[in-house]
Amino acid sequence: MAMKVALLGCGVVGSEVVRLVNEQSEELAARVGTRIEIGGIAVRRTDRDRGVDPALLTTDAASLVTRPDIDVVVEVIGGIEPARSLILAAIGAGKSVVTANKALLAEDGQTLHAAAREAGVDLYYEASVAGAIPLLRPLRDSLAGDRVNRVLGIVNGTTNYILDRMDSLGAGFTESLEEAQALGYAEADPTADVEGFDAAAKAAILARLAFHTQKVTAADVHREGITGVTAGDIASARAMGCVVKLLAICQRSEDGASVGVRVHPVMLPLEHPLAGVKEAYNAVFVEAESAGRLMFYGAGAGGTPTASAVLGDLVAVARNRLAGTSVSEGGHDTGLPVHDMGETVTSYHVALDVADRPGVLSKVAEIFADHGVSIRNVRQEGRGEDAQLVLVSHPAPDAALRSTVADLRGHEMVREVASVMRVETFAD
Amino acid sequence: MAMKVALLGCGVVGSEVVRLVNEQSEELAARVGTRIEIGGIAVRRTDRDRGVDPALLTTDAASLVTRPDIDVVVEVIGGIEPARSLILAAIGAGKSVVTANKALLAEDGQTLHAAAREAGVDLYYEASVAGAIPLLRPLRDSLAGDRVNRVLGIVNGTTNYILDRMDSLGAGFTESLEEAQALGYAEADPTADVEGFDAAAKAAILARLAFHTQKVTAADVHREGITGVTAGDIASARAMGCVVKLLAICQRSEDGASVGVRVHPVMLPLEHPLAGVKEAYNAVFVEAESAGRLMFYGAGAGGTPTASAVLGDLVAVARNRLAGTSVSEGGHDTGLPVHDMGETVTSYHVALDVADRPGVLSKVAEIFADHGVSIRNVRQEGRGEDAQLVLVSHPAPDAALRSTVADLRGHEMVREVASVMRVETFAD
Repeated sequence: MAMKVALLGCGVVGSEVVRLVNEQSEELAARVGTRIEIGGIAVRRTDRDRGVDPALLTTDAASLVTRPDIDVVVEVIGGIEPARSLILAAIGAGKSVVTANKALLAEDGQTLHAAAREAGVDLYYEASVAGAIPLLRPLRDSLAGDRVNRVLGIVNGTTNYILDRMDSLGAGFTESLEEAQALGYAEADPTADVEGFDAAAKAAILARLAFHTQKVTAADVHREGITGVTAGDIASARAMGCVVKLLAICQRSEDGASVGVRVHPVMLPLEHPLAGVKEAYNAVFVEAESAGRLMFYGAGAGGTPTASAVLGDLVAVARNRLAGTSVSEGGHDTGLPVHDMGETVTSYHVALDVADRPGVLSKVAEIFADHGVSIRNVRQEGRGEDAQLVLVSHPAPDAALRSTVADLRGHEMVREVASVMRVETFAD
Repeated sequence: MAMKVALLGCGVVGSEVVRLVNEQSEELAARVGTRIEIGGIAVRRTDRDRGVDPALLTTDAASLVTRPDIDVVVEVIGGIEPARSLILAAIGAGKSVVTANKALLAEDGQTLHAAAREAGVDLYYEASVAGAIPLLRPLRDSLAGDRVNRVLGIVNGTTNYILDRMDSLGAGFTESLEEAQALGYAEADPTADVEGFDAAAKAAILARLAFHTQKVTAADVHREGITGVTAGDIASARAMGCVVKLLAICQRSEDGASVGVRVHPVMLPLEHPLAGVKEAYNAVFVEAESAGRLMFYGAGAGGTPTASAVLGDLVAVARNRLAGTSVSEGGHDTGLPVHDMGETVTSYHVALDVADRPGVLSKVAEIFADHGVSIRNVRQEGRGEDAQLVLVSHPAPDAALRSTVADLRGHEMVREVASVMRVETFAD
């Protein structure tokens, strides 16, 4: 009585799943209580060698996911269609599902979870955010008795690698991107990573889990990538004892009535546990009411780490099926709305090249005050004719900060706005 | 149809559990699918004000745990007895159990898990190791499809606080301990923490989960505390780009046929993610075959963080009961034996005050070679009549390293063995 698995997709992750299921067959059987077997693998072409038993291959994914002997469907195709239709068909046929598909979960998680609840099957997706790091199930299960207030995550390895190189070598963005591409950390078309689309999908999934609010999708996420980050920004950050990281931030509003979900570059103090996350590693920092500060760290991508997360889900789903149970998710919806980025409270770091003459600082300070933004820190450095003025604001609505910067840009005493970036503080 | 909880113990953690269950009543009900209610609280004396409904208090714990209306027993008394008898009685009466009791789990986890399996009830214990950090369930569940090779943990906040103060202020052990006591980070009798007993109990629990080997108890753990760590050791570590941490280390042997479980001070390179864990924080670093390197970080103790972990377990256990299922643990036993500390492969840092004359280095090198230990690094600093010789070994069996040090101590050219400590490396 083995547990039969249908695998959709057999690329880098899929072939690793097959390898691990075969290699660890005995151990998995002991842990689950029954053997796990690959019953079929849906691929686009069956004539390529994938290192798997060719008899398992089929191009007919639709038939595979409803085949009576299949218990669990593992989807590692990615993208919205045909993944969504196949998963819904599998659920409709009473199969449990394990997926690594962040784009689909971010766009239509609510539909999928509702279908799984109705069918009484599992839908697990640990691999969709932060690869191998056990994160989603701890958020869903271990913190189920707590109230999460904020999640800050480095959830895209490519951009973290690029920013880390810029920081450690003083390299520019283009140069660092090219290096990341040469090493296989970045795609030939890097848009999804460097423009923050990948991180935004993950942010939507994290927000849904952290705040039990089911309607958040990737479209609700305010998104800024790292293509505008300059060597000057990095140097400015260093001068303040900070590093620049691309963060996914999910945050409950002060009054608890809404949530903000955003992805953008941030200057982060070196004391912050996320600041030390190097290269292509991922880490997610969680602030919960009772648990306090938590961090989860590890490899965010790669075939084997992602396959490890898929296998962990597969074991859980198999155990649940043996026990005749399933974990339903999304049935409890706080319905918290997502507020606009303009209402999100942030702090700004602004570096200005200004004319070095009397009255400049007072004029700049007045512009901040006009928008109701107070200044936490000013540093002035004279440089011949010009001076550089570096200001860090206290927290204020992002819209107020944005219009402060717009006014600064328009002012005749300001030669150039050399660097603008949001700042996170870290106090004990 | 509420889920009724019997609470054993109402100290710092217990009273926080009551407060959270009451304050988050609505949210918990929505997440679980039914209300969670405290049905009774067993305490030693009922005449003290604990901020809970006095009608719930009883001194008759034995009757409470078998009361027919009770579904789940939460044990936060600590210690071996009466906790063990009460938990076994509860399990025997078909109740699920949530406990924070590391000492009991470390000493007799096998008995408790077997009883829970037989009765078909849950036994959850997330709070017993690393407080609020979701760690045990991720190890058990999320990594169920992976093979863990090594676990390195800072699992005792008191000793981490003391070592952190010694490192950042250059203070001595006694002074730092006194400060920790004044701040409530250390007990009046600090033995359990500073001698490593607390960490050893947690190491046993981690080894059992990581390697699925059920017989490991605290008595199998090689244990050295931090009372012998000097300001000189800390300075020596700094000179090598290291910090000193008390680590719990669980490691599969090279051939996979046995495991080593130990607690001792370690010099850890600053690049290691655990090196940045400050103050009383805890963190556990896991090396798994497929997932690679993972780290879990957060508050390791304190009433509210620990209560958060208890509540997470309580929600899981309540959901399982509603679904008519339970998670059995310990049924799969790899039976891997624990090998002796002497067979554990480690590296040593040794600082020697030696006579500054020809032949010393060659003599010292010969002593290392006699024990089959090769040297990775030597640094010599002349100091007038004497010189200090700092050596770091390559990995070797601990017994060989120990006898190398014993021979060095006995040699006439060695004035003093100034510092001996194990070293962990961290390579990419």
